[in-house]
Amino acid sequence: MSTRQRRRVTIADVARHAGVSTTAVSKVLRSAYGVSPAMRDRVRAAIDELGYRPRAAARAMRGRTYTIGVLLPDLRNPFFPDILDGLYEQLAATDYQAIIVTGGPDAKAESRAIDALVDRQVDGLLMVAPRVARARLEEVAGQVPAVVLGLHEKSARYDTVLDDDEVGAELVVGHLIGLGHRRIAHIGQRAVGRGRAAATLHEIRAATYARVMREQGLEGEIAVALTSYSEEGGYQGARELLARSPRPTAIFAGADQAAFGALTALHEAGLSVPADVSLAGYDNTRLAGLSQISLTSVDQDGGVMGRTAGRLLLERVEGRRSAVRFSVTPTLVPRRSTAPPPDSVA
Amino acid sequence: MSTRQRRRVTIADVARHAGVSTTAVSKVLRSAYGVSPAMRDRVRAAIDELGYRPRAAARAMRGRTYTIGVLLPDLRNPFFPDILDGLYEQLAATDYQAIIVTGGPDAKAESRAIDALVDRQVDGLLMVAPRVARARLEEVAGQVPAVVLGLHEKSARYDTVLDDDEVGAELVVGHLIGLGHRRIAHIGQRAVGRGRAAATLHEIRAATYARVMREQGLEGEIAVALTSYSEEGGYQGARELLARSPRPTAIFAGADQAAFGALTALHEAGLSVPADVSLAGYDNTRLAGLSQISLTSVDQDGGVMGRTAGRLLLERVEGRRSAVRFSVTPTLVPRRSTAPPPDSVA
Repeated sequence: MSTRQRRRVTIADVARHAGVSTTAVSKVLRSAYGVSPAMRDRVRAAIDELGYRPRAAARAMRGRTYTIGVLLPDLRNPFFPDILDGLYEQLAATDYQAIIVTGGPDAKAESRAIDALVDRQVDGLLMVAPRVARARLEEVAGQVPAVVLGLHEKSARYDTVLDDDEVGAELVVGHLIGLGHRRIAHIGQRAVGRGRAAATLHEIRAATYARVMREQGLEGEIAVALTSYSEEGGYQGARELLARSPRPTAIFAGADQAAFGALTALHEAGLSVPADVSLAGYDNTRLAGLSQISLTSVDQDGGVMGRTAGRLLLERVEGRRSAVRFSVTPTLVPRRSTAPPPDSVA
Repeated sequence: MSTRQRRRVTIADVARHAGVSTTAVSKVLRSAYGVSPAMRDRVRAAIDELGYRPRAAARAMRGRTYTIGVLLPDLRNPFFPDILDGLYEQLAATDYQAIIVTGGPDAKAESRAIDALVDRQVDGLLMVAPRVARARLEEVAGQVPAVVLGLHEKSARYDTVLDDDEVGAELVVGHLIGLGHRRIAHIGQRAVGRGRAAATLHEIRAATYARVMREQGLEGEIAVALTSYSEEGGYQGARELLARSPRPTAIFAGADQAAFGALTALHEAGLSVPADVSLAGYDNTRLAGLSQISLTSVDQDGGVMGRTAGRLLLERVEGRRSAVRFSVTPTLVPRRSTAPPPDSVA
């Protein structure tokens, strides 16, 4: 049963078994360009038959660990698994393995988590909605090929994959105004750890909300609660907004996760959705589609974002130096949580 | 801004700065026993002031990577972050970093994910609800100190942290019978990849459901749909059960995640919860507490399980060889999704 006593299979064994050169095997292992599909299949078959496993430490000494590090802010946001599924799909045909660390509660903890991945010599780094400052991201990108997902800052050092958050927020606010709402409030995320404004997705969603309200002559109705994109944040934010008089007839939460918390606060206040208050989120997480919740949300296709991030990382590992930017245009998914405001039927 | 040009801080620099021996610094770095709190604080202060970071590869060559590998079946089950929070809490005061990989759709993919962690020379391995066979788990445990969470099989090679799933399932079925239900159905998980029966938490929850039904003279009412502990699985399972005639008045889903999918199926069938059908889950995830869902569930304290798993792993890394078993006794959290059956008021 145990294979620990057996001699470890080497790259030379694989080459002999496949009837090719060790250089060819090495190229397949590196997922290098210029390998024919037939050659790849042949080498892979030999690898499977012999049970060859490259040693990570030995590989690291030769310069590659075949590891992609992924930094997530947390494991609770149900949008992140969508991104990861896309990344896994992109890496499935390669020898790369994704390892995940979470960033923790603040920029300092996140910075340590990034260090942990760099110290483990990952070949590439995907940082999802990082909180550390741009200078720090650029420093990291100088050490390891990096892709940043969700930040709008432009950089020549790393690639960027993002949702067009301006379009997404316009869709939500436009939808609510179209239903007849005027007192539309927003739950956003308080800035954490980053100096420059207008670069995070949170800031863009909040700024776009305010801009559309002004453009529609609703400047006097702007009401923003800045908490966090979490259930707790949404709960606190909704409580803060519902204490206003008159209270809002619609709430745009910057993330589904926050909208779920807002639902609890609305329920506790004895208000029904959408009869008393309409509610919309952002991310179109699977839970938003659950019939009991049926939350109007913005779909930004996390799968495409994850697949793209994976492709860009592999290109960078292979040597690309120029920075690219990939933007997904989101769409609105209207559900039962939004309807005309209560006074519009009077 | 960049520190890449500077000479890297060494362990000797830290020792000099702290006024202690390099052996003492090394002991603190290893989180070894027998270091006084004062010594640890002094060395840690020097490490922080100088910005010392041990090289992971160099450490690996010396035998430690200060990495705990975590295998999760997926990232969508909202119970897993509770476990991880407990683990992080346990590791916070040490130099250990947790890295996460997901096991993928089947035992073969999971086995590759485990290999990936072993190849990256993790010092310890936490495997959450693994699908691979026990022989494979024991093989892995022979290579790396290992803790298995959620399996009931006994092993002398690894530690086990588990929920007393028998007690949990008894609580749910007893609660439903106490409310007056007789046609109580169960949504379970089809066995995947493991030979031995009665060892997975899924199997124990399903077997306990059947046992309690029999003990209560309800053998003829036993109805089980075996799908998976996921939203899709719960949806399919509930559709299968609702097609029965007469249909069940209560459904016990083996996991909250499956209960969420069952909710959608119930809603689509035009049935209301709990007026037409009562529904209970397992795991007491945060979403179960959301007012719109308010799902009766079983709490098994993932935080305690994660902290314990972390403590056991650190003990094993320090040399413990005997296998221990830690069991959490679950509690029932009744919410609005369960009520007396419709015909009981007639």
